[in-house]
Amino acid sequence: VSRVAVLLPAGGSGTRMGGACKPLLDLAGETILSRCMRPFLDRADVEWLVVALPAAALEEPPAWLPADPRVRLVKGGPERMASVRLALEAVPDEADVIVVHDAARPLVTADVIDRCIAAAAAGRSVLAAVPVTDTIQEIDDGGAVVATPDRSRLRAAQTPQAFPAGVLRDAHARAALGEEIATDDAGLVSRFGGRVHVVDGSPANIKITTPVDLLLAEAILADRR
Amino acid sequence: VSRVAVLLPAGGSGTRMGGACKPLLDLAGETILSRCMRPFLDRADVEWLVVALPAAALEEPPAWLPADPRVRLVKGGPERMASVRLALEAVPDEADVIVVHDAARPLVTADVIDRCIAAAAAGRSVLAAVPVTDTIQEIDDGGAVVATPDRSRLRAAQTPQAFPAGVLRDAHARAALGEEIATDDAGLVSRFGGRVHVVDGSPANIKITTPVDLLLAEAILADRR
Repeated sequence: VSRVAVLLPAGGSGTRMGGACKPLLDLAGETILSRCMRPFLDRADVEWLVVALPAAALEEPPAWLPADPRVRLVKGGPERMASVRLALEAVPDEADVIVVHDAARPLVTADVIDRCIAAAAAGRSVLAAVPVTDTIQEIDDGGAVVATPDRSRLRAAQTPQAFPAGVLRDAHARAALGEEIATDDAGLVSRFGGRVHVVDGSPANIKITTPVDLLLAEAILADRR
Repeated sequence: VSRVAVLLPAGGSGTRMGGACKPLLDLAGETILSRCMRPFLDRADVEWLVVALPAAALEEPPAWLPADPRVRLVKGGPERMASVRLALEAVPDEADVIVVHDAARPLVTADVIDRCIAAAAAGRSVLAAVPVTDTIQEIDDGGAVVATPDRSRLRAAQTPQAFPAGVLRDAHARAALGEEIATDDAGLVSRFGGRVHVVDGSPANIKITTPVDLLLAEAILADRR
C-alpha cells in the first residue's frame, strides 16, 4: 500500500470573489476548504495532508479545522505554485505518492481521488480531466480566429493531480532555479519531459472561481442530497 | 439600420437530457426556447426569427410560442448544421445580417446580442466567446498529454454568431455539396477562408446540455432576480 501525502494550496486571495480567501468561504454550511479535505481524510492510505494557508489565516487557525494528527498547516506563497512548493517541503521522505488538489474544488468525489492515487501508485503521473464541451477557438492578438483545435483531443484539467513522489519533487527542485514556468504540477512535470496521463475527472468537480460557481456548487450539493 | 434575421436551431433530441427536446423543457416557469427568443424579439431590427423544430413539435406547435408575425417555424434536420441550413432557406433575401443562436442558451443577454449584431452590421463575421478558465490539455490516443496550448490564446465559443448575410449564405451553399465539415457556423465560414472574430460573450450565457446545467441556469436566474 502506498503512503500518500496530499497538498492543498489555499494561499490565494481570490480577487474574483471580492478578495476573500475562497477556501474559507461557506458552502452550504461547511467551508470550501473543509469539504476539500474530508474525502482525503476518509482514506486510510492518506498519512499527511498539508494545507498552505494565507499568513493571516495561519495566525489564528480556524476552529473548524479537523483535529486530525495527519493535518499540517503551512504558510502559502504569493502564487499557487509557490504554495505547492511550500507544502511539499512539509512532506516527509516516507511519502511515495503525492497528490495536489485545488482548495477551491470542494465537490471532488472518492472515485476520482481513487483513480488518481491508484495510477500514481502504479508509477504514473496523472491529472483528473474531463472532455471539453465547448468548441475551443484559438485567436490572434486582434481577436481573429486562427484555428479550431480538434475538440476530441482536448481535455479540461482538474485536480486531483497525483505523482510518484520522486517525480514531483524532482520537477519542483528543477523549477526552483528559474521563474514560474507552469500553472500547475502536471504542467511542471511535463515541462521537464515527464509523461503525464489523464484519468477521468467529473463534470461536477468544479472549481469555485466566481460567485456563479458558488451557486452551481450549492445546486449540485442540493441535488446530491 | 440593418435588417436582421435570427436562426434558432432547436431540432435536436438531447440524448444527455433523457431524450427530451431540450429547448422545450421548462426553466423556472418558461421554456428554454421561449427564453432564447425573447431578447431577440425585443429588438426592433430583428425582422425574422426562424425556429427549426423537431417534426413532432411542428405538428402541434406549442401554445406558448409568441404570437409575433416575425416568428417562422420550420422543420429541423438530423443535425444542428442541417437545421441551420433549413432555417436559412426561410430567410428572405432582404435580410442583411443573419444571427445564429443555440436554442439551448436561454440566458443570453441584450448586451451580448448587441455586440454580435453591431459587428456583423459593420461587415464582420463574429461569434460570442469567453476566456477559457480551465487549463486545456491536448492528449494522444493513449490519454498522454502531448501539449498544453497557451490558455490566453483560447476562447470558448458561445452563440450568438452573426454574419453579413451573404457570407453565411455563401458558406452554406459551398458546404451543401459535401458532407458535414464544421460543428458551427463560425467554423463553416472560417473553413472556406472567411475571417471570423470573437466578441465578448458572458460566462452566464451557458448552454444547457446536462441536468447539472439546468440547475446552474436556475441558480443564475434566481440570482438575477
